[in-house]
Amino acid sequence: MKKVEDYVTSIPGYPKEGIIFRDITSVLESKEGLKLAIDEMDKLLEGVDFDVIAGAESRGFIFGAPLAYIHNKGFIPVRKKGKLPRETVEMSYDLEYGSATIDIHKDSIKPGDKVVLVDDLIATGGTIQAAAKLVEQLGGEVVKMIFLIELTDLKGREVLKKYDIASVVQYEGE
Amino acid sequence: MKKVEDYVTSIPGYPKEGIIFRDITSVLESKEGLKLAIDEMDKLLEGVDFDVIAGAESRGFIFGAPLAYIHNKGFIPVRKKGKLPRETVEMSYDLEYGSATIDIHKDSIKPGDKVVLVDDLIATGGTIQAAAKLVEQLGGEVVKMIFLIELTDLKGREVLKKYDIASVVQYEGE
Repeated sequence: MKKVEDYVTSIPGYPKEGIIFRDITSVLESKEGLKLAIDEMDKLLEGVDFDVIAGAESRGFIFGAPLAYIHNKGFIPVRKKGKLPRETVEMSYDLEYGSATIDIHKDSIKPGDKVVLVDDLIATGGTIQAAAKLVEQLGGEVVKMIFLIELTDLKGREVLKKYDIASVVQYEGE
Repeated sequence: MKKVEDYVTSIPGYPKEGIIFRDITSVLESKEGLKLAIDEMDKLLEGVDFDVIAGAESRGFIFGAPLAYIHNKGFIPVRKKGKLPRETVEMSYDLEYGSATIDIHKDSIKPGDKVVLVDDLIATGGTIQAAAKLVEQLGGEVVKMIFLIELTDLKGREVLKKYDIASVVQYEGE
């Protein structure tokens, strides 16, 4: 029985020396890999009471949308700044070089909504923390964060220690 | 019984005067809307024999991934240039102002693969035509293109007349 990690392509030295890039496109492109990845992420939601799933552009869409569909919930796309047509709230966060800003529609979350955040990978946790702040700014509650891959050395869990976090595959080392 | 179009938000004058923007985030954010949209797109695949689904970054991911999961097929992300870590093939196409380039991994499609292309919306058809050319360059066959929304006045079907195209909701007028 193959595991999700058997479908991940590890690329040493990409995008730069000393980094091992974990490429999930080889998971997605395999029918067995895609099914396994979604089903394993789905197991992380067992017993979680929630209203809606939010996923960050663009790889969070690949996992968030199927999970929302399976659970018959709505899906909120967390987008890069300037791509949503109606009134938004936005949040900036630091990257290794510079910063990024993400948006969600102001009416996408109602006060009291229980929200699950989904992404393909957690490294330092910057994007998902910004997404969580947007949810909270609109009165929602982040009840769970789930990831396919967790890079444990980058200590995203420490930044996000107030949240309930789970991941399918953990890698030590960047 | 509500239809997909009942969940679409039409925004006159966005992004500029004379355009009516069809916003699908209100479809996604509703649990009934998301389920209906995916199930209606799924009906467009009835009787289609295919190996894999490809979807264009980033809204194509939202529909392509669940459909691939439902059919137990792989999902190929068609990405904006420079985001894929392994060897790619790329294709440029014209936009209203300037141009854009998309990539797929060279090993994502094998010669003879039957590929379904999925996107949220077809307007002039530029993106999906470029994606089809990438599939064909790798020896794959585009057996179907499906969209949630079709803007019929922009005549994407004329550009893509050699392909089998289907959409769930059609709008006349931009």
